[in-house]
Amino acid sequence: MIRNPRQDNQGVTSAPADKTAQDAVDQINPGAELAGLRQSIDNIDMALVAMLAERFRCTQAVGKLKARYCMPPADPAREKQQIARLRQLASDAKLDPDFAEKFLNFIIREVIRHHEAIARQQDGVTETSS
Amino acid sequence: MIRNPRQDNQGVTSAPADKTAQDAVDQINPGAELAGLRQSIDNIDMALVAMLAERFRCTQAVGKLKARYCMPPADPAREKQQIARLRQLASDAKLDPDFAEKFLNFIIREVIRHHEAIARQQDGVTETSS
Repeated sequence: MIRNPRQDNQGVTSAPADKTAQDAVDQINPGAELAGLRQSIDNIDMALVAMLAERFRCTQAVGKLKARYCMPPADPAREKQQIARLRQLASDAKLDPDFAEKFLNFIIREVIRHHEAIARQQDGVTETSS
Repeated sequence: MIRNPRQDNQGVTSAPADKTAQDAVDQINPGAELAGLRQSIDNIDMALVAMLAERFRCTQAVGKLKARYCMPPADPAREKQQIARLRQLASDAKLDPDFAEKFLNFIIREVIRHHEAIARQQDGVTETSS
């Protein structure tokens, strides 16, 4: 009889009928569970990379648009609004709002880095975070 | 006649029939285009927050699993594999692979921060990045 070790912890009274089988469960299940979680993490990372790539395409388009129409590259009101919104979204998703804000700042730093690289290469083409 | 300013740049020969209308296009379209791009950025940020929240749920489950079965919290081989995979995914998506690696390290630092906070609160429950 193969029994789940969790059942033991919940007070099931009968002893394992087959200790070898019980050991097999203890040894095999954690590895399978770990592999499953890692597969989920890998899938999520694939989605994150795709979303980040798309986000930079958008910020690059914003930068070109602003340069073309001589709009100011920075927009503090928009950035404030973005941070407040992201903190609320994080809170709803049970993600630490402080981490969400750190994450947005991390992205914005990268956008600024792009902006500076572009500015060094060609005058007038800028990229903004917002 | 309202004409798109981009058409002018592509060598359309006829002059604008109505300069006022042309000016209106120049003034109104950039704002609408900017609003559209910002809407895309906001949608992407919503997806990023959801994916990050789900990723931390997975790493937390990995941490609990490893603590329960006394598996080592760190796995350098797995981390090396993750970095190589993420760099390749980034390259395919035309995202800077160096940025993708920095991003993964940023996430891992947060996971370690969680791990340290948990370790301070209760002995034996750990969380890993992988």
